[in-house]
Amino acid sequence: METAAYALLTAREIGTFKNIVGEDYVFMDDESLDIYAHDETENLHYRPEVVLKPRTAEEISAILKICNEKNIPVTPRGAGTGVSGGALPHLGGVILSTERMNTILEIDERNLQVTTEPGVITEVLQDAVKEKNLFYPPDPSSRGSCFIGGNIAENSGGPKAVKYGVVKDYVLNLEVVLPTGEIIWTGSNVIKNATGYNLTQLIVGSEGTLGVVTKIVLRLIPLPQFDLLMLVPFRNLEQAGEAVSAIFRAGFVPSAMELVEINALKIVSKFVDSNAIPITDDTAAHLIIEVDGNNRDVLMQEMEAIGNLLTQYDIGEIYFADDAQQKAELWKLRRRAAEAVKMIGYTIEEDTVVPRAELPALIKGVKELAVKHDFDVVCYGHAGDGNLHVRIRKEGIPNSHGNAEMTEVLRELFKLVKQLGGTISAEHGIGLIQKPYMDIAFNDPALRLMREIKKVFDPNNILNPGKIFDLKN
Amino acid sequence: METAAYALLTAREIGTFKNIVGEDYVFMDDESLDIYAHDETENLHYRPEVVLKPRTAEEISAILKICNEKNIPVTPRGAGTGVSGGALPHLGGVILSTERMNTILEIDERNLQVTTEPGVITEVLQDAVKEKNLFYPPDPSSRGSCFIGGNIAENSGGPKAVKYGVVKDYVLNLEVVLPTGEIIWTGSNVIKNATGYNLTQLIVGSEGTLGVVTKIVLRLIPLPQFDLLMLVPFRNLEQAGEAVSAIFRAGFVPSAMELVEINALKIVSKFVDSNAIPITDDTAAHLIIEVDGNNRDVLMQEMEAIGNLLTQYDIGEIYFADDAQQKAELWKLRRRAAEAVKMIGYTIEEDTVVPRAELPALIKGVKELAVKHDFDVVCYGHAGDGNLHVRIRKEGIPNSHGNAEMTEVLRELFKLVKQLGGTISAEHGIGLIQKPYMDIAFNDPALRLMREIKKVFDPNNILNPGKIFDLKN
Repeated sequence: METAAYALLTAREIGTFKNIVGEDYVFMDDESLDIYAHDETENLHYRPEVVLKPRTAEEISAILKICNEKNIPVTPRGAGTGVSGGALPHLGGVILSTERMNTILEIDERNLQVTTEPGVITEVLQDAVKEKNLFYPPDPSSRGSCFIGGNIAENSGGPKAVKYGVVKDYVLNLEVVLPTGEIIWTGSNVIKNATGYNLTQLIVGSEGTLGVVTKIVLRLIPLPQFDLLMLVPFRNLEQAGEAVSAIFRAGFVPSAMELVEINALKIVSKFVDSNAIPITDDTAAHLIIEVDGNNRDVLMQEMEAIGNLLTQYDIGEIYFADDAQQKAELWKLRRRAAEAVKMIGYTIEEDTVVPRAELPALIKGVKELAVKHDFDVVCYGHAGDGNLHVRIRKEGIPNSHGNAEMTEVLRELFKLVKQLGGTISAEHGIGLIQKPYMDIAFNDPALRLMREIKKVFDPNNILNPGKIFDLKN
Repeated sequence: METAAYALLTAREIGTFKNIVGEDYVFMDDESLDIYAHDETENLHYRPEVVLKPRTAEEISAILKICNEKNIPVTPRGAGTGVSGGALPHLGGVILSTERMNTILEIDERNLQVTTEPGVITEVLQDAVKEKNLFYPPDPSSRGSCFIGGNIAENSGGPKAVKYGVVKDYVLNLEVVLPTGEIIWTGSNVIKNATGYNLTQLIVGSEGTLGVVTKIVLRLIPLPQFDLLMLVPFRNLEQAGEAVSAIFRAGFVPSAMELVEINALKIVSKFVDSNAIPITDDTAAHLIIEVDGNNRDVLMQEMEAIGNLLTQYDIGEIYFADDAQQKAELWKLRRRAAEAVKMIGYTIEEDTVVPRAELPALIKGVKELAVKHDFDVVCYGHAGDGNLHVRIRKEGIPNSHGNAEMTEVLRELFKLVKQLGGTISAEHGIGLIQKPYMDIAFNDPALRLMREIKKVFDPNNILNPGKIFDLKN
């Protein structure tokens, strides 16, 4: 646990905050504090003392200077769609919301780049560049509501990562306000950079613990003109996992390759009231496979070849989504899986990832663990990346955070993941709830380096303290 | 300058080194010390006190522990092909050569990954995975002699970066010996990772100042089956720069897009005794454009479309390389340009990079600078990345390092680069010779962060000290 004692806010600081961001953007009423007390993580609730909604980097700098001086914890927050507790103010203090910093500053068509503020919704950004025939691929399931700033903080992925990479692969340069109030740019607006330490990549995925990102330069790529989608029912879950690796070994690089276990599909089909994917008794899981590119004929050939390759497995009839509506329907079922299973009590979500060929071993291990520890489990995820979301329901245990029994179960799960060459989070981050497992992912000297890096950026440990790891004083 | 005083080696340490690596791998003879006194950087020469050739991470750990305790500078070294002085032992002490750590440990075809030691030659690695129909794209011009470990240290690029990215985009996980002798793994063998700070990306491009990389896990991609190459002569250098951006804006992503100025071509054609590229009086520069993929017909169509697009510029006849030999001949001319121009006195090479559409402005600025400061200059490079190598010849000034006049010229050049949204090194690193310009690339707080990060990893500043920046004590 954090041993540092933090100061409580006084009327004096509140007055100064009002001077900085304007009275209208300082919130202390019960309703506001309750809204910012949670994100999408399990069902945890921690109220801040105050919510601030600054508009500029300079305002954030002024806020951080005060908090740094007065020893007040600050939790930066995007849209609050995170699932590892990164935006939870579990030590009180200030919530620093970026929601007013919501302007796309420039779409540079000449250089295939976009410069944006952090509070822009990911899908809004994607749509804006799409109008210019450009593509920003990383698209977490929450893309309709999450902020691009939050995506940077968590190094988000999404279905397209398998072909196009994750957020870190698109970030060129960041304007960052340090906990001391200093403002830096981390890099340069170029795609090749060998100039000093990679501060950009140190900030990406640092979960708001090293600085507050206030401007973002992303590289873009030309928008692929066509995509095709197919759905493959597997009678055996592990075979579905094996097929994933086989497709890549055969030289294909699909633009998405998702796995949905049959019980997850049943739950989400009911939740969104859709029968777009037929549920048959003998199906264990579906693979959703997408290819994209600029030549429709080539893509058709690819689809056919992938289909032929899969006949070696025990599969049902392959379904090709023909038009935009059918595709949207399939994607809706996949994207809303997390929400649907959470609704019926699968509150504990793990974000395991292994080298993709180890997916069958991971799935098998998860199932054995569920039997051993008597919990319900559903799996779905970005199979092409080896990224399996494991969703757990256990009577009487609504949260993993602080629960001794669940901590033991998850340690077992993560040890298996580690043993298979993987790690404990692929795209959700560590935040508050995964930090007890960091010692499984890294040895002591590596963890010491991380803690010391945190101290370099944030000597007083005021910025999102107690996330990723506790600082040992 | 470094103010820390380092200790000289005594017979006692030499004896211990012999115990650690074996007598045969400790070199103190004049010839050896001279070989390791230089790399490919300008023509600088700094002799180490001793050259050690360890075989394992454990041996390196033992060496570093001693040097850390006794305050002896250690310069890690790959193949010595670097061009920023990163492997020069300018403060004496130990050269730690990785040349005996030259085993490819595992090609994991199931997961499209390779695990290798750092002393493997890049091209050897590329060829080994190619045999399995896999592809490791980053290929610096020196790929036939440079080590993969050095590529990691410098975050190398090469011609394919324009489509496939640079070294950092392929590194999944690194085993690193810290200056304290501790050994860590930085990440995990997965393509999506949101687990703690990105130590992997902090080590990539850190030029051997934070740790010694002893094992490397790289992701691979399926090998594209075809590539096509065309050569386009431009009558106007700036138009060649403009065309680069236009091709991308039209939606094409070539697998290489290289620029060679006519005077560089003349020099290298003579140097390698080739007339593969016809030199005509009215040509200012050539673009070499490559596309690759799995469908030859589609590639032919792409080539044709790019050719059509380029007719809007003042170009000569487009030349298509038909077979492997023709392609190899063109690539040889491009790849050996640096060597050729250096040979006739263009010793000072800068590695400028700007957003690609700013290339014409950069080229124009370089030419103006050459007139103003009366130097000869040739340009070539990875135009698709906005990465222009600027090679300078100035009577009486063989090196930029420590030369006041050249420092002023380069400051002007780098300020222009910065103003255009670029930075001072794309793929060569900062090393010894670019460090006077780091304040152009970064502001004081950003540089302070880098220095403090260095201290976290290397509290006694023994590992490659005085590279990238001097530590202010």
